Amino acid sequence: MSSSNEPAAPGDLLERVDTPALILDLDAFEANLAALHGYAAARGVRVRAHGKAHRCPALALRQIAAGAAGICCQKVGEAEGFAAAGIDDILISNEVVDSPKLARLARLARDVRLAVCVDHPEAVRALAQACTDAHAQVDVLIELDVGQGRCGVRDVGEVLTLARAIADAAPVLRLRGLQAYHGSAQHLRAPGERAASIAAASRRAAQARDALEAGGCACGEITGGGTGTFAYEAASGVYTEIQPGSYALMDLDYRANGADLAVPAMRQAIGVLMSVMSVHRTHAVLDGGLKAVSVDSGAPAPRLSGWRVRGVSDEHTVIEPVDRSAAAPAPALGSRCMLDPGHCDPTMNLHDHVVACRGDRVEAVWPVLARSASR
Amino acid sequence: MSSSNEPAAPGDLLERVDTPALILDLDAFEANLAALHGYAAARGVRVRAHGKAHRCPALALRQIAAGAAGICCQKVGEAEGFAAAGIDDILISNEVVDSPKLARLARLARDVRLAVCVDHPEAVRALAQACTDAHAQVDVLIELDVGQGRCGVRDVGEVLTLARAIADAAPVLRLRGLQAYHGSAQHLRAPGERAASIAAASRRAAQARDALEAGGCACGEITGGGTGTFAYEAASGVYTEIQPGSYALMDLDYRANGADLAVPAMRQAIGVLMSVMSVHRTHAVLDGGLKAVSVDSGAPAPRLSGWRVRGVSDEHTVIEPVDRSAAAPAPALGSRCMLDPGHCDPTMNLHDHVVACRGDRVEAVWPVLARSASR
Repeated sequence: MSSSNEPAAPGDLLERVDTPALILDLDAFEANLAALHGYAAARGVRVRAHGKAHRCPALALRQIAAGAAGICCQKVGEAEGFAAAGIDDILISNEVVDSPKLARLARLARDVRLAVCVDHPEAVRALAQACTDAHAQVDVLIELDVGQGRCGVRDVGEVLTLARAIADAAPVLRLRGLQAYHGSAQHLRAPGERAASIAAASRRAAQARDALEAGGCACGEITGGGTGTFAYEAASGVYTEIQPGSYALMDLDYRANGADLAVPAMRQAIGVLMSVMSVHRTHAVLDGGLKAVSVDSGAPAPRLSGWRVRGVSDEHTVIEPVDRSAAAPAPALGSRCMLDPGHCDPTMNLHDHVVACRGDRVEAVWPVLARSASR
Repeated sequence: MSSSNEPAAPGDLLERVDTPALILDLDAFEANLAALHGYAAARGVRVRAHGKAHRCPALALRQIAAGAAGICCQKVGEAEGFAAAGIDDILISNEVVDSPKLARLARLARDVRLAVCVDHPEAVRALAQACTDAHAQVDVLIELDVGQGRCGVRDVGEVLTLARAIADAAPVLRLRGLQAYHGSAQHLRAPGERAASIAAASRRAAQARDALEAGGCACGEITGGGTGTFAYEAASGVYTEIQPGSYALMDLDYRANGADLAVPAMRQAIGVLMSVMSVHRTHAVLDGGLKAVSVDSGAPAPRLSGWRVRGVSDEHTVIEPVDRSAAAPAPALGSRCMLDPGHCDPTMNLHDHVVACRGDRVEAVWPVLARSASR
């Protein structure tokens, strides 16, 4: 164990990592990168890996080395963190509306190829002003709501209004195309449902693209698609770029999806390592809770045959035998237990470091961006 | 707005704080401290404020100034962080079993009055070894499971076994008494249910105390009780110390409890400030999500009359009118919206700083302990 606030040091045995700690299985991570980027390359679709999933520059650099054209993220703070690590092609796949944030965004755009989404004419004007003030140029994607009902405009008329506002702000703003991510399709369990959702999303995106081009606006890019649906965007003939993030890490929620034909199965690459801190006849208690693993998409699952999670509180996870009548051997006090998280993104965000392991050895300890990257 | 990674600077207007940000209403916080510590002082029960609720040394120091005898926390990393801020009476109200953590704990015990809980003889031996190695002395509380079914021993026989192991490890270990916290009683909604649970917990604690004293072991302290039940521990005649934490901050889950007679109502002191980043006919989107507010105890609630949360995803909270037929005025793009969190502890943990406001002005920006305090 390291003497700093890092939970481990290179060369440590996995079973000696201080807990709770976020563990990355490098073999699984690398296999996921090879599978996804190979799949996309064979189909001629560009991959922009979503850095919100991990907020870890070291992982983003490896995704780019594996074939990603760049990364996307949701926040100016994330973009600043990734840029500081040397990543020079970043899409903020989200709206940014506040003046101080827009000023930071414009400053960053002087150093890297940067794009951001808009869904309101006021935001276009504020972005243009920030870029003018900073002598910066930014690419803009109009976010289209293709079914999620969150951000983005729904009507082609609104798309054209935004395109005109962007054109009016040339040369500091330049229309790159459409952001068309369908978030709520990602966890539809049946592949057929996901396929149908993305077919509908693709039709909407194509209509908007055609309207833009009929209006004299080039729409070079249609980007979207996550770990649950990227095969359908890639095959759509409409999307030019996909934005998967969780594929590199995986979680129980994505693993509960029904498998898609021809899409390689991704391996569980992250886990939360905890120690057994209290043992009882009926249960055992692990030394991490809500501050170490996110439960918004359900409880984590212990990699301990015959055991399941009974409850998660701030600093404890209680596990119990699945079958109380069968005598599952209780884990020893102080022994380690790995848990698969329900949802990878907010779980990564609970840790300062990711401990990258090759088999049972720590190979590296990589920082995760500070919590202030949320701004 | 500050140019550092802090979301604000003293003197800023609340409406200019960068978002998402964790806001502390100082008037409400101070009123909660006055109410709780006045209540306890009038009843002659000592308060050990639970620092796990906020992990913020600046708040802990104010709790001590308001009358807390010291603080408790769950992790060695938290204890180190609070000690570094000058807090010199700390109870780790939890088990610590791993050798590197025990070594850190023993080192810390040379500098501050430190206590820790045990529920297994092996842990007593490992703790004693660490203290011997560090030439340190630590107070020990035997954790009694008074109904939660998590950590702690259940039988008086086990209590006596642990007391003998602690006595055998004198002088490096010294028995202080019993940790008897009933976590699952905190959110029983009816005051009568909470009263009955704590009556049962008090009987168990008194039995264990009597057995210890009959066995020649002084049991000076019986500590436990949280924000939902402290009135019952305080009135029990058994507990000598209460451990509330959330009282200072509050959340929706505690506010859903039925009120106790004679217990002052605590005010909502923390909120998560977000900005409206996207507006639509049917909904609006705020610029914070699962990485800014915890949803383990339910969705947050916007302080925006006629609006409610529809959904929370990684970086977005979607709000909608409660009554779609009534025309609730939509919030303006870029305007601020404060949300009350469902659960204060893991929400605090999602932020690097707490922005302390007096009315609509920022008075201070205080750091929250690093995520590595979980170890």
